[in-house]
Amino acid sequence: MVSRIAPRSGTAFRLDKGQYLTVIDPEGEQVSDLLAYSAADTREYISSGRSIDYAGRMFLTTGDPLYSNRSNVMLSILADEVGRHDFTLTPCSRDTFRIIYGDEDPHHGCQGNLERALAPYGITPDEIPIAFNVFMNVDVDASSGKIEVRPPKSRAGDRLLLRAEMDLIVAMTACSAGQSNNFTYKPIDYQITDTLPDWAL
Amino acid sequence: MVSRIAPRSGTAFRLDKGQYLTVIDPEGEQVSDLLAYSAADTREYISSGRSIDYAGRMFLTTGDPLYSNRSNVMLSILADEVGRHDFTLTPCSRDTFRIIYGDEDPHHGCQGNLERALAPYGITPDEIPIAFNVFMNVDVDASSGKIEVRPPKSRAGDRLLLRAEMDLIVAMTACSAGQSNNFTYKPIDYQITDTLPDWAL
Repeated sequence: MVSRIAPRSGTAFRLDKGQYLTVIDPEGEQVSDLLAYSAADTREYISSGRSIDYAGRMFLTTGDPLYSNRSNVMLSILADEVGRHDFTLTPCSRDTFRIIYGDEDPHHGCQGNLERALAPYGITPDEIPIAFNVFMNVDVDASSGKIEVRPPKSRAGDRLLLRAEMDLIVAMTACSAGQSNNFTYKPIDYQITDTLPDWAL
Repeated sequence: MVSRIAPRSGTAFRLDKGQYLTVIDPEGEQVSDLLAYSAADTREYISSGRSIDYAGRMFLTTGDPLYSNRSNVMLSILADEVGRHDFTLTPCSRDTFRIIYGDEDPHHGCQGNLERALAPYGITPDEIPIAFNVFMNVDVDASSGKIEVRPPKSRAGDRLLLRAEMDLIVAMTACSAGQSNNFTYKPIDYQITDTLPDWAL
């Protein structure tokens, strides 16, 4: 069964060790902020710094493990039809929209959606780290370090496949930031399966 | 008074709002991992993701604020004699040395030094985020995202000046990772002052 995350919203769910999570961009050019916590101890969480350091690459893709702050593998990327995701920026928030976009009455953003989705699991707003920003396309200038948020490279139907390497609480959004999604807010689909999906065989 | 952090060690101290912190590389080519927490509520901590997002740059320098996870300014960079620091990688740890260097009996690294220094303030190992890695020189390939840890650009005596914008607990190390420090372990010096240091006037 494919589940849908409505535009500018979020969800959280349990993903058991060995289960597969397919993240789908149904309409194209839509980002999903993804977080993971150990179900056994939610103080263990996904770590961009550990994952980038151990991969030796900023841009992670097929074959790369996503590590926790305790250096345990939480998820593995098994297949990737897009090949470009961000792992440096925090979820967009009221403050993002205020500081970067100058909004007077800012949307609560992915941060707000993740806070709401994770509250039932006892995870607090301060425990939301840098997300694995699926399909987010951030260019970096190697000499100045300047970053530019570009439209995602994902086209309608493109997928990313992850496998849980421990029992997890996973949270995902359909991202709320204009610039990250080429200025249209679209849904994100996802599917949890106990076996490897056919398309990835 | 200038304080010294011995090679491969760390420290933590209180830095009140308005105080200045000078970080000095006394011998050159030495990294210092720097963390900051709000003294009023240590669940508020320095955030690479927020700081990079709001600056629009990976490499922060003079004039850039360092934000917390709650999007408050914790520290401002007032002067910078080096101009290249990293804000993407987590403190080196036993796991870093095991996974990247293949060490059989790994050093506890900056992570271990930060854990020990922060324990008296009630800050736990899981609450150590991505550090502001002062003088760390990480190149990024813009197309592949490949990262390369290079020798720091700091020469003997080079300084970075920060001002506290809230009451803080600050932790700093003399970094323990070979690659980050051109394979020699040196001290880091720092000085706390109530007025702007002469050299930065």
